[in-house]
Amino acid sequence: MTLSIKVRSAIERSSWIRRMFEEGAALTAEYGAENVFDFTLGNPSVEPPAAFHRELRRIVEQPDTGMHRYMNNAGYEETRAAVAKRIAKNSGVPINSSHIIMTCGAGGALNVSLKTILNPGEEVIILTPFFVEYKFYVDNHGGVTTEVWTDPETFQPDIDAIESAITSNTRALIINSPNNPTGAVYSAETLEALGQMLDRKQAELGREIYVISDEPYARLAFDGNSVPPVFKYIRNAILVTSHSKDLALPGERIGYLAANPAMDDVTLFIEGAVFCNRVLGFVNAPALMQRLVAVLQGESVDIGEYQKKRDLLYKHLTGLGFDMVKPGGGFYLFPKSPLTDDVEFVRLAQQHNILLVPGSGFGAPGYFRIAYCIDMGIIERSLPAWKKLAKDVGL
Amino acid sequence: MTLSIKVRSAIERSSWIRRMFEEGAALTAEYGAENVFDFTLGNPSVEPPAAFHRELRRIVEQPDTGMHRYMNNAGYEETRAAVAKRIAKNSGVPINSSHIIMTCGAGGALNVSLKTILNPGEEVIILTPFFVEYKFYVDNHGGVTTEVWTDPETFQPDIDAIESAITSNTRALIINSPNNPTGAVYSAETLEALGQMLDRKQAELGREIYVISDEPYARLAFDGNSVPPVFKYIRNAILVTSHSKDLALPGERIGYLAANPAMDDVTLFIEGAVFCNRVLGFVNAPALMQRLVAVLQGESVDIGEYQKKRDLLYKHLTGLGFDMVKPGGGFYLFPKSPLTDDVEFVRLAQQHNILLVPGSGFGAPGYFRIAYCIDMGIIERSLPAWKKLAKDVGL
Repeated sequence: MTLSIKVRSAIERSSWIRRMFEEGAALTAEYGAENVFDFTLGNPSVEPPAAFHRELRRIVEQPDTGMHRYMNNAGYEETRAAVAKRIAKNSGVPINSSHIIMTCGAGGALNVSLKTILNPGEEVIILTPFFVEYKFYVDNHGGVTTEVWTDPETFQPDIDAIESAITSNTRALIINSPNNPTGAVYSAETLEALGQMLDRKQAELGREIYVISDEPYARLAFDGNSVPPVFKYIRNAILVTSHSKDLALPGERIGYLAANPAMDDVTLFIEGAVFCNRVLGFVNAPALMQRLVAVLQGESVDIGEYQKKRDLLYKHLTGLGFDMVKPGGGFYLFPKSPLTDDVEFVRLAQQHNILLVPGSGFGAPGYFRIAYCIDMGIIERSLPAWKKLAKDVGL
Repeated sequence: MTLSIKVRSAIERSSWIRRMFEEGAALTAEYGAENVFDFTLGNPSVEPPAAFHRELRRIVEQPDTGMHRYMNNAGYEETRAAVAKRIAKNSGVPINSSHIIMTCGAGGALNVSLKTILNPGEEVIILTPFFVEYKFYVDNHGGVTTEVWTDPETFQPDIDAIESAITSNTRALIINSPNNPTGAVYSAETLEALGQMLDRKQAELGREIYVISDEPYARLAFDGNSVPPVFKYIRNAILVTSHSKDLALPGERIGYLAANPAMDDVTLFIEGAVFCNRVLGFVNAPALMQRLVAVLQGESVDIGEYQKKRDLLYKHLTGLGFDMVKPGGGFYLFPKSPLTDDVEFVRLAQQHNILLVPGSGFGAPGYFRIAYCIDMGIIERSLPAWKKLAKDVGL
């Protein structure tokens, strides 16, 4: 047998979603990319900000000796200091470079965090609808996921439901705001209530329950709002994120992990996480990108563009009768499927050259996900197709 | 308890080697980097070849749209094709881009390979002296390592000893040539005998036994020799490597995994490995570096410089009475410790401002490792200190 039993089974279980992507690719090949409305991928079509290109040219024209060598597994001191400074400014929490580890994206940071804390069989709560990779990440390190639904009216975490799901074997909770796939931004009140409940449960159970806050969309908050800082509300919090969305660098694998300075034994946690960053084979975050993001912490892609896309699609689709929660950030919409079977609905949408991901892919059958991080022109051209699709399903 | 039990225990067990590094750092701080002879780190002091800087400037001056986005988890087609072409040329094996996955360094490729094939409790044979990370990598994915000594006269794999260690639970063997820490280059005869023995054992046991060939030093072969291509001799072989040494880019985390086209179910293996590259959080190898190495497969740092360093140190140290196997490649020497206790010897060397790693760190007490990937000037200045050290231990 070539593959491990687990890997073989995961591949077999996910074959349906791969088939769907292949069908989408076949449509694109047949009709041309400009006539297929591909809302499936969280791969931003925007380019990095001008400052990124400028700083990259500056570094490359005057290369420093040793700039491509290994550095400390935690990353360059100056990069970690720049990241800490920005978090401190945003949150008011006195965090410094010793609390930061540069990582290969948020995916790297999540795996490092989970390996650092998980013993075999320990439970990690994830909130439905969830980013499907969380289940694999937890399983990589011997953990078991417990799925708890968010409030379906708002997609905010349901504090009572989370409390009920906590057992003496619970080790962590993964949260994600702005959320993939719902676009929900967790409110300060929600985070505060979550932090208080966890403090109570940790005291009661006599063990740490970590909150791993996955925040790659944290800069993408709309309507003049910002994403409430997790460190202000939750003590044993680990922030994991990347510059994949805010600097539009997903292919470069540059992100970081930050531990709340108020965390129990924070120095020991960081020591463990640096070790895990090393032995998982990441070793360190890519050197050149570390130099770049050190000087780009104040930069971001144009959030206004994302908000325009959300507004256009939200207005058009709700106008057609689609039912959805209005997202406060990110670049996803997560409407209810007009057909009971979300996979059937997504197949029907394909016939109108609209490519979507069924809610079943996020543990939430009965919904579908729209990723609108694509060119405005494609979104605009898709509007008549959505109208036909709505008609088709009797909206 | 903050850390998982395993991570805590690993950190505690490795504290002695960390303390040794800290003592070394303190020496450097006290005497200045130019007066401390630091032979501990496999972090090449050479710079990337001129072609790297040229190509980087070319790409950065004319950036392509989308060049920092996600791509296929396996990497860019053109990069994989360039890598395959080079392997095909070197080995004569008909390999193409479908057999290649670009990874975050060889550390990433090793973890991806192991996760792809390992079921819980399966055994992976490693050859002593070994690169200590192998033990962590195997454990990450639920495997168990079996240590088998190489022939201490040559540091070549001992085929009979490996055969004796194979059980019905053996899943893989990790080899590393040129070797860290010994510098041994495995001969074509050794690889051929290994391939034949494994074919026999696989038929006998009715299961695949993979050879994961870790080859980051493959271009660093001396005396006009080259490293024999593993795919020519071993059917179920996975080649893992990086451009950390040949292009001097260790901090950039760019490497790859290649499957022998002759492997059983090679397409399925690659599908599984692409999945593991994704779910381990690597996602893809850094995009910009993929573009660069696509056009740099014919480039390399100056091997002659490494050979000069080996020759100088080998001659000087054997002249002083140190006993060692002459390495055929890489950038390490692995002499016998003149004191029975290698840790004691390394501490004594510190008193002469010579920093080394004890063989115990490689599962081989009674030896010590010299990493000579440092400036020739430092090596030259170290020679009198070595003479005093030799005298101190009665050589």
